Amino acid sequence: MHVQEMISAHPDVKGQVNDALIRCIEECYDCGQSCLSCADACLGEQDANQLKQCIRLNLDCADVCFATGATGARRTGSNEELIRSMLETCAVACRLCAEECEKHASRHEHCRVCAESCRRCEEACEGAVRTIGFRH
Amino acid sequence: MHVQEMISAHPDVKGQVNDALIRCIEECYDCGQSCLSCADACLGEQDANQLKQCIRLNLDCADVCFATGATGARRTGSNEELIRSMLETCAVACRLCAEECEKHASRHEHCRVCAESCRRCEEACEGAVRTIGFRH
Amino acid sequence: MHVQEMISAHPDVKGQVNDALIRCIEECYDCGQSCLSCADACLGEQDANQLKQCIRLNLDCADVCFATGATGARRTGSNEELIRSMLETCAVACRLCAEECEKHASRHEHCRVCAESCRRCEEACEGAVRTIGFRH
Amino acid sequence: MHVQEMISAHPDVKGQVNDALIRCIEECYDCGQSCLSCADACLGEQDANQLKQCIRLNLDCADVCFATGATGARRTGSNEELIRSMLETCAVACRLCAEECEKHASRHEHCRVCAESCRRCEEACEGAVRTIGFRH
Repeated sequence: MHVQEMISAHPDVKGQVNDALIRCIEECYDCGQSCLSCADACLGEQDANQLKQCIRLNLDCADVCFATGATGARRTGSNEELIRSMLETCAVACRLCAEECEKHASRHEHCRVCAESCRRCEEACEGAVRTIGFRH
Repeated sequence: MHVQEMISAHPDVKGQVNDALIRCIEECYDCGQSCLSCADACLGEQDANQLKQCIRLNLDCADVCFATGATGARRTGSNEELIRSMLETCAVACRLCAEECEKHASRHEHCRVCAESCRRCEEACEGAVRTIGFRH
Repeated sequence: MHVQEMISAHPDVKGQVNDALIRCIEECYDCGQSCLSCADACLGEQDANQLKQCIRLNLDCADVCFATGATGARRTGSNEELIRSMLETCAVACRLCAEECEKHASRHEHCRVCAESCRRCEEACEGAVRTIGFRH
Repeated sequence: MHVQEMISAHPDVKGQVNDALIRCIEECYDCGQSCLSCADACLGEQDANQLKQCIRLNLDCADVCFATGATGARRTGSNEELIRSMLETCAVACRLCAEECEKHASRHEHCRVCAESCRRCEEACEGAVRTIGFRH
């Protein structure tokens, strides 16, 4: 992805790229895509009835990750209070989805890979939150 | 929209519809659409340069509203910790967008209508949060 | 929803609202939401294994409907070639999803309601395409 | 991104990965993200009034790319008629956005990078269409 290259080219950024936020945005898209694919692969499994909670958490996590990636990448104007709250919510979505996927990781490779994406994204969201100022 | 009708027909719901959550989901889609249209209308205005912060908050609010509508409507399995956090984040997005749109409401009808959608959605998210149990 | 009110307030529209397109945008959001809810309700059914194709078409149709609603509502600048192609694609998504939901409509109320939303959206997309000029 | 890894792990795929489609899905997410960032960067420019058409095409292209990535990645069940139509629509969105971004590429680095993402995605969509069977 070209997140770093695109954000570096924003007129208000001019070299002051927030590396933690950029990594977080990349992880959000990666995790969102992994979660959509995991939901689809779980649905295709013969034991799909045992994976209903996993599918649900996958779909929720994907929705939250893509919205976090989109809001986190904007540099025109500011919306720090929202980004902070969204990053915290995204870390929750990723943690809950990872916990569920990990239960199925030994049987289903897609759950194993997805759990890793979720853990990386959870950690990246937590890392990015610490870099976002917030003034009431 | 058919939110009530669709959720009532879910096999795990069977008449126990959460009216506050249903209203919230409807408001999320309405607010998300209003925000996308307001961003577009602001961009089309001759004084668009004075509306850059409004466009940014509109786009952020739309992303969060649609993700909240999608995650809030799922009834298979459960994800209450996430829904709760997402509803709180959505209330923040709506409040911040409403405050900005209200500054332009006297000059731009689209900002006036959008601010009202945001305020209704903010209130509906806060009402829905109070109905969502949350056990650590 | 406030589609008509928001688009009427766009600076470039000024009373020249395309009613067929506005109805189409409203149907896209309604259909997208119905499809997300139908996918979730199908997943919750005891015979979910027989509804896998329905869930897949629901999720695809939702993705296409929301993207069509978003692109169709913009009035700043122009993108008629894309809107036209997107409306045609959305009509395909709705037709295929409706055909599948109709197979389950007698057993599952959510499939019955969703099939109706899909048919209304299919028709609205086809109606809107006829109003969009297209010059190569 | 983990598109290849996730799709390879789908129970119905089992090693029969369609490389052209996988590349296309990756390009869709890359292009969608680049377009969102380009819209935001254009809005932040001092000459934003001259970039309104570019912002509009960026936002449209992002909506279409993300929907194409999501629908194209599903392997449970089938929806080939829709995927084909969506890939063709996405190629249109990318071509039109690339043509506009190329006009500003010499002045704005974000438009230059975004135009390249759009051209790669356009080409990948066209390559993927040729691999999708379609039976009426």
